[in-house]
Amino acid sequence: MCGIVGYIGQKDGTEIILEGLEKLEYRGYDSAGLAVIDKNRLRYSKHEGKLSNLKESIREEPISGTLGIGHTRWATHGVPSNENSHPHMNGEENIAVVHNGIIENYLILKKELIDRGYTFKSDTDTEIVVHLIDFYYEGDLLGAVTKAVDRLKGAYSLGIISRLHPDELIAVRYESPLILGIGHGELFVASDIPAILNRTRKVVYLENNDVAKLSRDSYLIYNGNRLVEREIKEIEWDIEAASKDGYDHFMLKEIHQQPQAIKDTLLRRIDNNGSIFLENINITAEELKKINRVYIVACGTAYHAGLLGKYMLEQFVRVVVIADIASEFRYNDNFIDEGTLVIIVSQSGETADTLAALREAKSKGARILSITNVVGSSVARESQDIFYTWAGPEIAVASTKAYTTQLVAFYILSLYFGRLKGNLEENLYHEIVNELKELPDKVKKTIYSVDLIAMEIAEKIKDKSSLFYIGRGLDYYTSLEAALKLKEISYIHAEAFGGGELKHGSIALIEEDTPVIAIATQQNLYDKTVSNIKSVKSRGAYVIGITRERNTDLGTICDKVVYLDESFNIFMPLLSVILPQLIAYYTALIKGNDVDKPRNLAKSVTVE
Amino acid sequence: MCGIVGYIGQKDGTEIILEGLEKLEYRGYDSAGLAVIDKNRLRYSKHEGKLSNLKESIREEPISGTLGIGHTRWATHGVPSNENSHPHMNGEENIAVVHNGIIENYLILKKELIDRGYTFKSDTDTEIVVHLIDFYYEGDLLGAVTKAVDRLKGAYSLGIISRLHPDELIAVRYESPLILGIGHGELFVASDIPAILNRTRKVVYLENNDVAKLSRDSYLIYNGNRLVEREIKEIEWDIEAASKDGYDHFMLKEIHQQPQAIKDTLLRRIDNNGSIFLENINITAEELKKINRVYIVACGTAYHAGLLGKYMLEQFVRVVVIADIASEFRYNDNFIDEGTLVIIVSQSGETADTLAALREAKSKGARILSITNVVGSSVARESQDIFYTWAGPEIAVASTKAYTTQLVAFYILSLYFGRLKGNLEENLYHEIVNELKELPDKVKKTIYSVDLIAMEIAEKIKDKSSLFYIGRGLDYYTSLEAALKLKEISYIHAEAFGGGELKHGSIALIEEDTPVIAIATQQNLYDKTVSNIKSVKSRGAYVIGITRERNTDLGTICDKVVYLDESFNIFMPLLSVILPQLIAYYTALIKGNDVDKPRNLAKSVTVE
Repeated sequence: MCGIVGYIGQKDGTEIILEGLEKLEYRGYDSAGLAVIDKNRLRYSKHEGKLSNLKESIREEPISGTLGIGHTRWATHGVPSNENSHPHMNGEENIAVVHNGIIENYLILKKELIDRGYTFKSDTDTEIVVHLIDFYYEGDLLGAVTKAVDRLKGAYSLGIISRLHPDELIAVRYESPLILGIGHGELFVASDIPAILNRTRKVVYLENNDVAKLSRDSYLIYNGNRLVEREIKEIEWDIEAASKDGYDHFMLKEIHQQPQAIKDTLLRRIDNNGSIFLENINITAEELKKINRVYIVACGTAYHAGLLGKYMLEQFVRVVVIADIASEFRYNDNFIDEGTLVIIVSQSGETADTLAALREAKSKGARILSITNVVGSSVARESQDIFYTWAGPEIAVASTKAYTTQLVAFYILSLYFGRLKGNLEENLYHEIVNELKELPDKVKKTIYSVDLIAMEIAEKIKDKSSLFYIGRGLDYYTSLEAALKLKEISYIHAEAFGGGELKHGSIALIEEDTPVIAIATQQNLYDKTVSNIKSVKSRGAYVIGITRERNTDLGTICDKVVYLDESFNIFMPLLSVILPQLIAYYTALIKGNDVDKPRNLAKSVTVE
Repeated sequence: MCGIVGYIGQKDGTEIILEGLEKLEYRGYDSAGLAVIDKNRLRYSKHEGKLSNLKESIREEPISGTLGIGHTRWATHGVPSNENSHPHMNGEENIAVVHNGIIENYLILKKELIDRGYTFKSDTDTEIVVHLIDFYYEGDLLGAVTKAVDRLKGAYSLGIISRLHPDELIAVRYESPLILGIGHGELFVASDIPAILNRTRKVVYLENNDVAKLSRDSYLIYNGNRLVEREIKEIEWDIEAASKDGYDHFMLKEIHQQPQAIKDTLLRRIDNNGSIFLENINITAEELKKINRVYIVACGTAYHAGLLGKYMLEQFVRVVVIADIASEFRYNDNFIDEGTLVIIVSQSGETADTLAALREAKSKGARILSITNVVGSSVARESQDIFYTWAGPEIAVASTKAYTTQLVAFYILSLYFGRLKGNLEENLYHEIVNELKELPDKVKKTIYSVDLIAMEIAEKIKDKSSLFYIGRGLDYYTSLEAALKLKEISYIHAEAFGGGELKHGSIALIEEDTPVIAIATQQNLYDKTVSNIKSVKSRGAYVIGITRERNTDLGTICDKVVYLDESFNIFMPLLSVILPQLIAYYTALIKGNDVDKPRNLAKSVTVE
């Protein structure tokens, strides 16, 4: 995934574009670049590495202009390098292009262009776009872009400027997100809202195949050569919400925001009588009865939340649920008909694999319910039913508050549907809802109580190459998420195993002092997990246990035990994931890693 | 899991027991021990480590007797040590017990016995058994054992002798396997057939709650205090089949046996007209139509075969299939009714978790179809429908030919059921069956063609701490099995990722020269996998590709590419798993690991 910013107006575009790119660095930070039209000259600067390299270079050799485009890159085709940085220019360097997405047929097009005499400076798929535009150019930039785009297969949002058209910025969207920002005498293009929120709150979401032509005070949007109208939306986000709030890193801030995020996600939905009200969920009791199969489809952390969702829905709604990874689900021969509900989970609402799975399922007749954190995101716009997690913007690449609010979404949805279907006895329902309301406080208490021990554990494990999380049932799902957190930012190869599955092969990896973190909060599986702990312990593992207060016997078995508040089994994942989040954070910190922007990763993955 | 051998007769029991234990070392090799009654004295010897330690000790200080019990241990409660080795004796050392299984309520019983004044020498759960027998003993060994066993919860097969009863061997079975061997003037007890196959071919399978009293020329079996009859079965296995056949290791031998094992599994089922005949599958077309849901339940390698099974059955039988790990499945709130078919996969047919899942599902009304390699195993005996993989005995802990024949089992079953349900058009069916028959030869060719490159790759990866396998669809399932093989015997932390899922976190682990093995045989997913390969390559990974002959372009992208014969997508897993098997083998070999008996692992896992 990459980030695009474009500007056309009266002010210095360079400054505005750099400011926007800064806000989009979470989309990629392998390289950055920008191009501006400066008195009929096209000037550009582009550099490998983080945005600061580009800024430094522009400070040394300033360029400016009132029309420009910028880009922050996450490498897909071609390694991170100056040459592969965007913008890409045609041979005469009078047209510049920035691109987010992947051109799937680029090899064929590249060969065709080389045959026509074009030379390539980079290994990217993007460079073919600018040469194609050059090839079709006959004095009309919009026309050339339209013809070039017709040749492309894949996903792309594009920003295009030309020295020959100093009053024109072209924006194209297909499968990758792109918005227009509407100012006074100025217009913006961006991959995401934070990039322009300091400048305007009026936004147009471009749709697939939209080609927009922006001038300084107006814009036209074409789709399939027909002029179209797109609604202007007012954004109510607070830009402050995206700042670090005094914490060293966004991740730590977001870990600490979890009690509030959970409270926000909960409280607007549950009234004082314990009744649940969901404004964007339209499924009726009758429709619910007809649903005979549910797929939960997501990627990464959201998939781990989906596993808990599977458990909750099966328990409370008594319907078969299949959780699947989006990039696998898409190519499976699934059983989808009008009796199928597909639940899509995506923090950003723009995750390419998830979005493609959504479309695939929808085209086969499934009803789509989405759980997302971004209002008006592609996933939300294409769903019949929506559950917004009110976690606020999540900036750190490693997801924390998005995950825990996704868990809460599944709690609420399964309680709501369970009642709607008549499966949940009233007393039990109220008992569960009452305990649910206690969770923000219990999460808060957990964050403070495990903070110090997380630092100690980080110190213990920091030089290890491998670590294992083990657990059974819901604890296994938490283990998967816990292992992913550690991988993402500490770069320790962490892997999660079902406690019972260990002995079927993976236990061979255990040797003297191998760190194993055992999650044992599910009381019905406790004895079995203890047996698994003993078997790794007897092979020399250094075992850290995470369990409930009552299980004091674990202290005699493990090397270290962390005790959590008591709650229902189903709610323990919300408490047990906190320590692993903090272990990942402190380990990354001690190792000197970039906590918020780990290597090789981007925040939301809008390529497949 | 542990191995038990017992002898009562006229000959030297020590020799017979040691010979039997040798054959059972695949069940555990943390420690070994034996006890014999020698002229009214109880003499014993027990030692940490492999059986050779015990043999050495007995050579130095011989003990013998015509009544005895022996044990080879896989540690569960208590580390491997002399003290924790079996047999365990009471305080006066006149009763000795060997045990396979886990006593779940041992802590309570231990406390009770300590309160009564008993002292414990070991950390094992087993030691409580001998003290309990001692406590109940009033001159009648069988009576004392019966009372003691009544107090136990968990899984246990037991062998018991006493100095006070020099003509009596007691054997108990509950949830752990135990057989009697019937000789002339001598009787045997063993956990598994190979232990006694040199001595007799007549076998009685004890059932749950059986307590057998053996004297030199007769035996009585009690169940719930009632005398019962058990059928005597004749074993037709060849003891030679369990030898190494000239290969350095059982694993290498078993890799090379795969073409024959696949052929055996195939050819007895498919006649010259391509019709499939399955003698132990009783499901009718009518019954098949009523099946609306299939669970495939297994552990470890067999679970990986089950994932392919899910794909095949969904494709050809058009029924929803859910594959689950047995130790998780057991505790899930599954949807089982008379419309549910549960397919159980277990090489040994004794895998404790799998067996427990089978019983759970059966008690809820599911029909059980099992895929197993052992005729007459617990899994087979408790299933309505059975598919035997005719792979022959698999001795190496890391499964190879059992896995590939399990794949073949799923091919045959899904073709058979697909035809039975009328979903498979005749021409297509015959095309697939014809290609299926080609597979033994293609597997054979693959084994020889990839052998050298497997050695080269082993040399390259041997000092790495981590390695990643990636793939999509069926290639992902093969990747899971490939990673497990490497873990089990090379002790390299290998992990498999769905190609599309990598970018959602795990790609953070990729750094310069990290080895990644990409399996790209599924032609419909090839382009997507190539994109995933490029993204790890651009982050510095050393990438080895496994693909079909036609995909020569992969040579320009990967550091090394291994080309496989062409076949249908569905059959490629049978070819693509060969190289990973050999890579695991050679890496373990170069590292000096015990290939056939990797640390911490036992062949078939009969404890939970």
